[in-house]
Order: sequence, then C-alpha cells, then structure tokens
Amino acid sequence: MSKLKVIDSIEEMQEISANWSEEVGFVPTMGYLHEGHLSLVKAAKENCKIVVVSIYVNPSQFAPNEDLDTYPRDFDRDKKLLEELEVDYLFFPKDSDMYPQNYKTWVNVNDLTKGLCGKSRPTHFQGVTTVVSKLINIVNPNKMFMGEKDFQQITVLKRMVEDLNFRVKIIGCDIVREKDGLAMSSRNKNLKSEDREKALSLSRSIKLAKNLFRDGEIESRIIKEKIWELINSSGAKVDYVEIVDPVTLEDVEKVDEKSRVILAAYVGSVRLIDNGNLE
Amino acid sequence: MSKLKVIDSIEEMQEISANWSEEVGFVPTMGYLHEGHLSLVKAAKENCKIVVVSIYVNPSQFAPNEDLDTYPRDFDRDKKLLEELEVDYLFFPKDSDMYPQNYKTWVNVNDLTKGLCGKSRPTHFQGVTTVVSKLINIVNPNKMFMGEKDFQQITVLKRMVEDLNFRVKIIGCDIVREKDGLAMSSRNKNLKSEDREKALSLSRSIKLAKNLFRDGEIESRIIKEKIWELINSSGAKVDYVEIVDPVTLEDVEKVDEKSRVILAAYVGSVRLIDNGNLE
Repeated sequence: MSKLKVIDSIEEMQEISANWSEEVGFVPTMGYLHEGHLSLVKAAKENCKIVVVSIYVNPSQFAPNEDLDTYPRDFDRDKKLLEELEVDYLFFPKDSDMYPQNYKTWVNVNDLTKGLCGKSRPTHFQGVTTVVSKLINIVNPNKMFMGEKDFQQITVLKRMVEDLNFRVKIIGCDIVREKDGLAMSSRNKNLKSEDREKALSLSRSIKLAKNLFRDGEIESRIIKEKIWELINSSGAKVDYVEIVDPVTLEDVEKVDEKSRVILAAYVGSVRLIDNGNLE
Repeated sequence: MSKLKVIDSIEEMQEISANWSEEVGFVPTMGYLHEGHLSLVKAAKENCKIVVVSIYVNPSQFAPNEDLDTYPRDFDRDKKLLEELEVDYLFFPKDSDMYPQNYKTWVNVNDLTKGLCGKSRPTHFQGVTTVVSKLINIVNPNKMFMGEKDFQQITVLKRMVEDLNFRVKIIGCDIVREKDGLAMSSRNKNLKSEDREKALSLSRSIKLAKNLFRDGEIESRIIKEKIWELINSSGAKVDYVEIVDPVTLEDVEKVDEKSRVILAAYVGSVRLIDNGNLE
C-alpha cells in the first residue's frame, strides 16, 4: 500500500510533477469528501498509475454574498478516506500561495458561462476556470476526473482545455446519489433534517422530465413548467430550470434524449443543483 | 548541423513536445524576422539544447482597425534565417486550428494591461496573453525568450506566467537597434523613406530622457513634456509618453534610474514603440 503524501507547497508539487514517469489521474475537489468524490478517485485509480487529489476551497469562485465561510471542511477525515483509497498525493495549497498579493490573471470562457448557474453566480465560473488552469499547471496530470453533477462546470472546463490546448483529458463521471435520490454534495451537510423532503424535489424533477419525455412530451416549455410546479410546491424555491443542448448549453425548444435538464433550487438557505439527460 | 523541422499541426507539435528530453528554449514571433528576433534565437541557442521558434501573426491581438492585413510576412526568408541559426523546430500554425469555430476562452491580466499600449489598443493584450498561453501549452518549453522592445508585453506575460503557475521562465532580452538608433521592428518595413528621420525621434526621446536625468531632472512631468516636444516637432505624432515603475507599470512622479520611459508614436500610418530605463 502506497503512503499518501500531503503537499501544501505549490513549488514542491511542481517539482514532483515536472517529470511524472507514469500516467497521472487528478481529482480536484473542495474537500469534505462524499461518495461522489470517492467514485472519481476510484475511477482515477482504475485508469492511472499515479493519483493526485487536491483539496482547495477556492475563494475566487464564491461571491461575497455566498457560502465560502460555511462551506464544510474536515481535512483529517478527508485525508483518512484518501489514505484508504491508496491515493498517492494530496495537494492542499494555501490561499496566500494561490492568490498572492498583486494577483491579476483570470481565465474566462465566454457564452457557456452566461446562463444557468452563471446567471445567479456571474463571477463563479471565472474563479473555476482560473483555479483549474492553475491546478493543471501545478499537478501536470494526463487525465482529470470530474463529476457530472456540475454539468455546466464540466462543459465549460472541457471547452477551456480544448481552447487553451492544455494536455489534460477531462473524464466526466456519473452523478452519485443517496439511496433516496438526492445527488451527493458537500452542501447536503448544511440541510436541516426537516428540509430533506424539499431537497428531494430536485432529483424527482429529473425523473419527472424523463417520464414526460418517455410519454411523448417534447415541448421544453411544458416540461419546465411542471418541474417549477414540483419544486416550488415542495417548499424548495427554484433558482432556474433549463433544458439545453449538452455541448453548447443553449436552450432547446423541442427536446430529445440527449437534451440536458439542468436546475438549481434553494432549500432553506442551501443552494442545490442537479441535472440529467432524458434517456 | 541539425535540420530545421517545420511543424504546422498543433497535434504534431504537442506529440513532439510531450516528452522533451532536454532543456527547450522557445522564441514566439510573428515572423518577418529581423536582428532583434535573431538575437533572441541566439540567446535561446546559447541557453538551451533544443530551440523552437513559432511564427504566427495572431489575429486576436489586432483590433479591426489595425494593421493585420498589412503586417509584413515572408515565410521562406524567415525559414532560411532559422535554418542558418540551426533552430530545431519552426512551429507555424494555422488560424483555423488556433481559433476554431466556437473558440471561447480568453486569458486576461488586469491593471497592467489598462495603460500605455492598452489604452489605445484595449483588446490587444487579451490576444497576446491568450495566444501565449496556448503556445506554452503546445510547445512546452522551459524558457521563453522575448525582446524588451515590447516592455509592457513582457511585464504582462511575466505576471501571467507567475499567476497561472506555468512552468516556463521568461527571459527578457535587450532591444536591438539599427545603427541610427531605430529599434528593430517588423513594422519598420512599412516606413516610407522620407519618414525615417521622424521615426528616429523615438530612440532620440529615450536618449533625451537619460540625459535629462543625468543632468539632475527627476520630475517625470518635465521629462515627458520635452519628449512630446521632440517627437511632435519631428513630424511624428505621439500616441503616449509615460514614465512608469518597471514592475507595476504605474506612473511615477519622481523618476529614478530604474524608471522606465515607454512611448508610442505614429510615423505616417505606422505605429512604432520604444522604451528604456534612465541608467
């Protein structure tokens, strides 16, 4: 069993990654690991000889009014989970190293970042694309494993990697769900127990859309209306519900099996997201 | 004598650069090579085992009203010059590969790109930082050699490389001048012969500033006034004259020997730049 090495220095990580001798799989996370993250780590272990996981709650992807301060953290528990999965390196950088004074550079992906989560979180994706660019340059991986729960994020990052000619290949992995259907999220910890039922309206919405489509409904407008109804009547509050082309993220009027239902809702003060195709 | 390999495919260049066995020096250019470029190539040859030069007239750093169409080009001549200097690889990509349909990603460096050339060319540096990010990812060099004639450019790119944790080190090389003092530039070719004298007002301005400082003048305002006078009385037309801190590019009121005089002027329809410290 290989021993997990915890690296908190960018310089040290770059020295190690300068001359990887074997294929490297990378799983970038914000920590507070759940089964969803662990499924990415397992995929990386299956595909690559060396596995690097990063834990970094990236401040630049949170707006001032968002939940940076309450974002759950538990480094010791995370470390133990990664040791059990025989991860090789845990990269755990400091804010002052990632964004030193006089930091000035931002990576932006146009269009794809404007709608969906980008509408209610207009500076979010700039933070994501920038930190992932930095992490790719620091970790120098061959493959990067990301969950499809953040469907817009993975679409934006695939575009960025292709546009900027990064060498890494992004591998999208299926959403992992609790037994009751709730998509795994570190933010689920912040749900009050009485709000669980409301939170389930998100995954039920995806199922509803699949059922409607299977029964012949192809009008995006009608499917979205029924999802709004389902979520808001549960006591959760819709942020957005869209049905989009999975590559361009543009709204579709008539759906097909590849169309992606993407939605976000507030359950109490917790903002949750979910998505799925109509197959 | 090694044989120059011309590579026009991004994919092929990335395959070659995936596992460089020795230190690689890179000189990104827009072609129409002059002694300034060649001095960079020579520096790369002296410092690195493998030398890659790129020739790419990057459309995204030209605004619609600028001189993309008249930017001088002579591939065969450039190739011959690089062969003579025993360059290993000439990377010569196509627009349709560098910016395919649906291209959406841009790298921006804040603040440093706002003043100086950024004022009259507000989209220029976004094009430069983006294409250089791409070229770094494609060529995977250890060192990148750039001329200090584009002083703001090199300052912006150093910031970008540090901020995004690119592994390359940028080496700034001295401005190379014609015998009469004119800073080497591919654009000099577009100068009419009767405008040569006007063009010399730029390098004379740098000398004037050095002389004024040596004689005790430390008021930035006064040095700039005298440069405006010199350039405009020559028949050239000042775009800007600034004296700045060489790292932050912020205006200085009282100059010292490290302060950088940076200026741009139109000579006929040709826009030229020059700069120097006050040592």
